[in-house]
Amino acid sequence: MSRDFSKLISYARYIAKKVDNVIYDIVRGNQERLYEASLHLIRAGGKRVRPLLVVLTGRLYGLPEEKGVVAGASVELLHNFSLIHDDIMDRDEFRRGVPTVHKLWGEDVAILAGDLLLTLSFYALAKLYREGFQPIRIVRSIEELALASKELAEGQVMDMEFPMRQDVTLDEYILMVKKKTSALFKASAAIGAILAGAGEDEVSKVKNYAESIGVAFQIRDDELGLVADEAKLGKPVLSDLREGKKTVLVIYALENVSENERRFILSVLGRRDATLNELRRAAEIIINSGALDFSNKLAMEYLSKGLSYLEQTKSKDSEAKELLKDLAYFFARRQY
Amino acid sequence: MSRDFSKLISYARYIAKKVDNVIYDIVRGNQERLYEASLHLIRAGGKRVRPLLVVLTGRLYGLPEEKGVVAGASVELLHNFSLIHDDIMDRDEFRRGVPTVHKLWGEDVAILAGDLLLTLSFYALAKLYREGFQPIRIVRSIEELALASKELAEGQVMDMEFPMRQDVTLDEYILMVKKKTSALFKASAAIGAILAGAGEDEVSKVKNYAESIGVAFQIRDDELGLVADEAKLGKPVLSDLREGKKTVLVIYALENVSENERRFILSVLGRRDATLNELRRAAEIIINSGALDFSNKLAMEYLSKGLSYLEQTKSKDSEAKELLKDLAYFFARRQY
Repeated sequence: MSRDFSKLISYARYIAKKVDNVIYDIVRGNQERLYEASLHLIRAGGKRVRPLLVVLTGRLYGLPEEKGVVAGASVELLHNFSLIHDDIMDRDEFRRGVPTVHKLWGEDVAILAGDLLLTLSFYALAKLYREGFQPIRIVRSIEELALASKELAEGQVMDMEFPMRQDVTLDEYILMVKKKTSALFKASAAIGAILAGAGEDEVSKVKNYAESIGVAFQIRDDELGLVADEAKLGKPVLSDLREGKKTVLVIYALENVSENERRFILSVLGRRDATLNELRRAAEIIINSGALDFSNKLAMEYLSKGLSYLEQTKSKDSEAKELLKDLAYFFARRQY
Repeated sequence: MSRDFSKLISYARYIAKKVDNVIYDIVRGNQERLYEASLHLIRAGGKRVRPLLVVLTGRLYGLPEEKGVVAGASVELLHNFSLIHDDIMDRDEFRRGVPTVHKLWGEDVAILAGDLLLTLSFYALAKLYREGFQPIRIVRSIEELALASKELAEGQVMDMEFPMRQDVTLDEYILMVKKKTSALFKASAAIGAILAGAGEDEVSKVKNYAESIGVAFQIRDDELGLVADEAKLGKPVLSDLREGKKTVLVIYALENVSENERRFILSVLGRRDATLNELRRAAEIIINSGALDFSNKLAMEYLSKGLSYLEQTKSKDSEAKELLKDLAYFFARRQY
């Protein structure tokens, strides 16, 4: 069952352009080096799916699209903050097809650029009172954003500790993903609904929807890290293995391959000097273990859970709802 | 003209204890390592002068002390975020008499601990709507906090670039200090007044007061870095010189000593392997140049500017006003 994403993709591009204008308006100041570093990854691309979620869940409950766009800039700023800081910690050298911020400007400026974007993500919401948004809705939105950012930090600590452990369970993986990936999708959905004036019941539904499809998104991300080609990925292939990430595929394989194969995977995992051949052999073992079938099934489970929450929402905008459905499918099945 | 700070100091201690309880209530979560790292510097001490400013400017306009305390936690969280990240960038190993966060937990966890505190500083304000604060006042407070945090990042970039330059002017120094030090004092004062419901006119007055005394605070900080003893300072003596910081004293001395002495200062400044004897000799030259007389006079100018703004406020609480006066004097003249 293949699905046509063309409508979603063209709407996403249309929104992305508007969101970028808001972002460029916010990320300005006096120290050029700092602002260049802060805008580097934003300029390099990205699909802006988090602002898209804000816009679409906003539309579900009657928030005009242009209001969703200005609020959406906030979650994209927070996302880019986390990319810059995560890249420092993961020692990643490429992202979105360009060198990472700390590679180009050094770690000190990269730390500050992340700090600035995190700060501006809150600023972007706070300043909405100047555009007629209700203060209490803004405050609630900031609360959701802050709680997501807190979970992001907790999730990153887990993700950093997992490579040092050989016994990470699927449950621990899911918990980490809910913090590191889903939390911001959840906040994005919440912010759209809250700013539209939806009641807490409806806010809960879109949060549950977003949390579930966020997990599907990360599982798909893990899969693409193993099978996608480098040009589409924008970063070196198999870098997850090199960094020793405990992806859903690795966790499944470690539990389901022979002792010899398990030992080989563990000998390659997280070794910065692993050769490309070793990485490829490890990937082959993981693929042959049936890990992709498993992860696919798991992603589909989270996808349908997400869709059922979406179904329960009392939407005023059937087109927005349809696009949110498309987005859920896209998260679980995208090719890049 | 010596001044009795005993009343200020005992009030500051009383407020600090209450603020700490609010902080410990906010900085909690699931990843122990992350939260231990985040609380490390907070537990190590600190005078909590920023929350004190929130409480006192709040009181000026009728905000009950206990409400000022819960809001005050926010600016202390932001302050500690900036200490953790600055220590990474400055490669500082000691602060408040204890090893810095990155020395104990590593840079990755230190980055995350800072991110967490920055996040929670916004959270601390956002959640005030649950305690009956007016949403619009909360939003305005968050806006002030975000703008201060933006200036902090800009100021830190300037501070990091200054050691690479030999021609930093006094004006550039003052601009850097206004961003790196005064901005958060300014936001603290603003937040107290805003939450109390003061009009924008009054908010401006306390912001101007706080900006001026913030400059005096930093000048005094520079002086103490040269003349205070290590135990009181909580960090290695003369570390400003070792790091090549362009303090007001260094800037003055470089413009007012002989060419030979100037060359000697420049040869020591920012050299990580400078010997204690070299550092002491450089300090001696700086002191003999009359730099301390100059900086003292400058601090007094900013002090009286600050006091005159304070005089203009339409205060409802003469005791709070008196304490703010004490605080201004303390900033400019403290011995630790």
